[in-house]
Amino acid sequence: MISELVDATLGRIKPIGDPSLSRQVEDRWDSLTKPRGSLGKLERLYLHYALIANRPDPAVETKGLFIFCGDHGVVDEGVSAYPQEVTRQMVYNFLGGGAAICVLCRHFGIEPVVVDMGVKGDEIPGAVNLKIAPGTVNFVRAPAMSRGQAIDAIEAGIELAIEASGRFHVVGIGEMGIGNTTSAAALLSAFSGQDAIHTVGAGTGVDEGGLARKRLAVQEALLLHHGATDPISILAAYGGFEIGAMAGFLLGAAAERLPVVVDGFISSSAALVARAFSPDSLDVALFSHRSAERAHALMLDFLGVEPQFDLDLRLGEGTGAALAINLLETSWHLYTEMASFSSAGVTDSGARHDTISK
Amino acid sequence: MISELVDATLGRIKPIGDPSLSRQVEDRWDSLTKPRGSLGKLERLYLHYALIANRPDPAVETKGLFIFCGDHGVVDEGVSAYPQEVTRQMVYNFLGGGAAICVLCRHFGIEPVVVDMGVKGDEIPGAVNLKIAPGTVNFVRAPAMSRGQAIDAIEAGIELAIEASGRFHVVGIGEMGIGNTTSAAALLSAFSGQDAIHTVGAGTGVDEGGLARKRLAVQEALLLHHGATDPISILAAYGGFEIGAMAGFLLGAAAERLPVVVDGFISSSAALVARAFSPDSLDVALFSHRSAERAHALMLDFLGVEPQFDLDLRLGEGTGAALAINLLETSWHLYTEMASFSSAGVTDSGARHDTISK
Repeated sequence: MISELVDATLGRIKPIGDPSLSRQVEDRWDSLTKPRGSLGKLERLYLHYALIANRPDPAVETKGLFIFCGDHGVVDEGVSAYPQEVTRQMVYNFLGGGAAICVLCRHFGIEPVVVDMGVKGDEIPGAVNLKIAPGTVNFVRAPAMSRGQAIDAIEAGIELAIEASGRFHVVGIGEMGIGNTTSAAALLSAFSGQDAIHTVGAGTGVDEGGLARKRLAVQEALLLHHGATDPISILAAYGGFEIGAMAGFLLGAAAERLPVVVDGFISSSAALVARAFSPDSLDVALFSHRSAERAHALMLDFLGVEPQFDLDLRLGEGTGAALAINLLETSWHLYTEMASFSSAGVTDSGARHDTISK
Repeated sequence: MISELVDATLGRIKPIGDPSLSRQVEDRWDSLTKPRGSLGKLERLYLHYALIANRPDPAVETKGLFIFCGDHGVVDEGVSAYPQEVTRQMVYNFLGGGAAICVLCRHFGIEPVVVDMGVKGDEIPGAVNLKIAPGTVNFVRAPAMSRGQAIDAIEAGIELAIEASGRFHVVGIGEMGIGNTTSAAALLSAFSGQDAIHTVGAGTGVDEGGLARKRLAVQEALLLHHGATDPISILAAYGGFEIGAMAGFLLGAAAERLPVVVDGFISSSAALVARAFSPDSLDVALFSHRSAERAHALMLDFLGVEPQFDLDLRLGEGTGAALAINLLETSWHLYTEMASFSSAGVTDSGARHDTISK
């Protein structure tokens, strides 16, 4: 028993996949005027989307992008290239429309939702205020948050996903939080057993000294919190509030069968947490990109997933997720608007029917 | 002396690159509210675009996509999964709006232009009719075209590019021609010296027998045409008319400094031809994707270029180019619409200025 909401949510998560629905989507792709399978990842992406939505032709019209924001006590260790105040400044930038994610959302017809899970300072008008505390505790000294706070963060994410499932066909998740690549690296080490040497990277562009401090911080924390083994304790140990909320969001989305496009390194670390609660929860996750943050490749491998593209992004905010939502929408347009061999009077090859399933 | 137009065009091609313009574009990227370089390939793509356009902030508003079509005599060798009539049927599908490239162009605001360089049969209303002949000769028996036809194809491409430079900020090039992966593979072998075992792939999805016939056809042709060493003779030997036109298009675009987004395996083979005329011509080329056609990776390596993404596409038509034009437009929106650190009141890291140049 974690909490009534968490337990009920976990109880509703079922693995996705329906061979007859798969076949139906593949048959449609194969009827279109192109060599079978020649749209590659676009065909597989839409198939996965249809399996999540449990329909042969789900639309990609209403699109949301949740940006989960929170501060991190571990910045006291000198792990970031930017001062902590930038988290709050960037929240204002999100609300003012000047951040990269705002530009992408505007052009792709995606509605951004800024969620304050624990930004330092007062409530920020325009952001969804679910602040658990004004930043986590420095996890080199003590757990980043209490067990109760970890559950609160997860529950907040679940509730947002349940609400989002009534408003959006698909939702991307991204984040902002100075210091949170350190949390994500620690989570990867905690779940995978890999040393910090493999999980810590340059984040927003920390220098060599900062990188050494960041690695040491994670190593010290892993020793301090080695007793944390269940998912709640691991999340509580390393933080942050925005990561917990994204993990909860994935669980809630899985219960609702809402497709979730996952952004980069930090968002993927939330998938580690969600998987620890429920491996099936990741069936609703579409991983967008492999980021330039070195350990993201390791993390994706550990999750056993293949992202859509690799554009050397390392910005966060959900920027990779927004690009992937645009790609998903493109695949939907192709799926629904292309002519078929018979309607266009094009001779089919009669080549054998290859499956496009993974 | 090849011809007046070709020689004059080659004489106008200059290498691009201007350190002060590079610095100007990089400074603008670095002033925006994101860690330096964190938009990865999007920053490099727009920088390259600006260098081609020779301006610090070129727009990506008017976009064209030229689909060069032609038939190939080598289909007589049983090298394709589709019958030859599909080339013509697909041209009608392009004009009817039902092909994949039509869907992409519609949603990305790209104007498609269908060019008949040598489709079997009569003139097709709605296509730009530059038909040199109704298909090439089977290049296993004789050169695919005469030297005069090769020059005509290149001149047609040059003229289209000159015209396009007055209408579009950027143009994608793609193609349709049953049998043309065989031509492209032969061109790769001829230029790189690689055996057909490495350059021939499954194309639109030929079966094992077809693959063996295709490999043999290229090997026989390489023996037959081993005397072809200058670019015109090589193009004439292996074809096709649409490949020659795309090569000419690249030369004309280079003379006009029109950015050209190159599609997949066959379009890239035209870049081999263009480079043989003028290495600097490829400075205006933006390579879109690494296709699922096995030898495309080899071809891109041989060209020494890095594409934007790898989505396992193997459709042609310019589909990968259209997706990359959309990505380029996105990078332009980010570059022009994002807030700067100073305008948004976000604290900069003061991290050292990294160059984003290749």
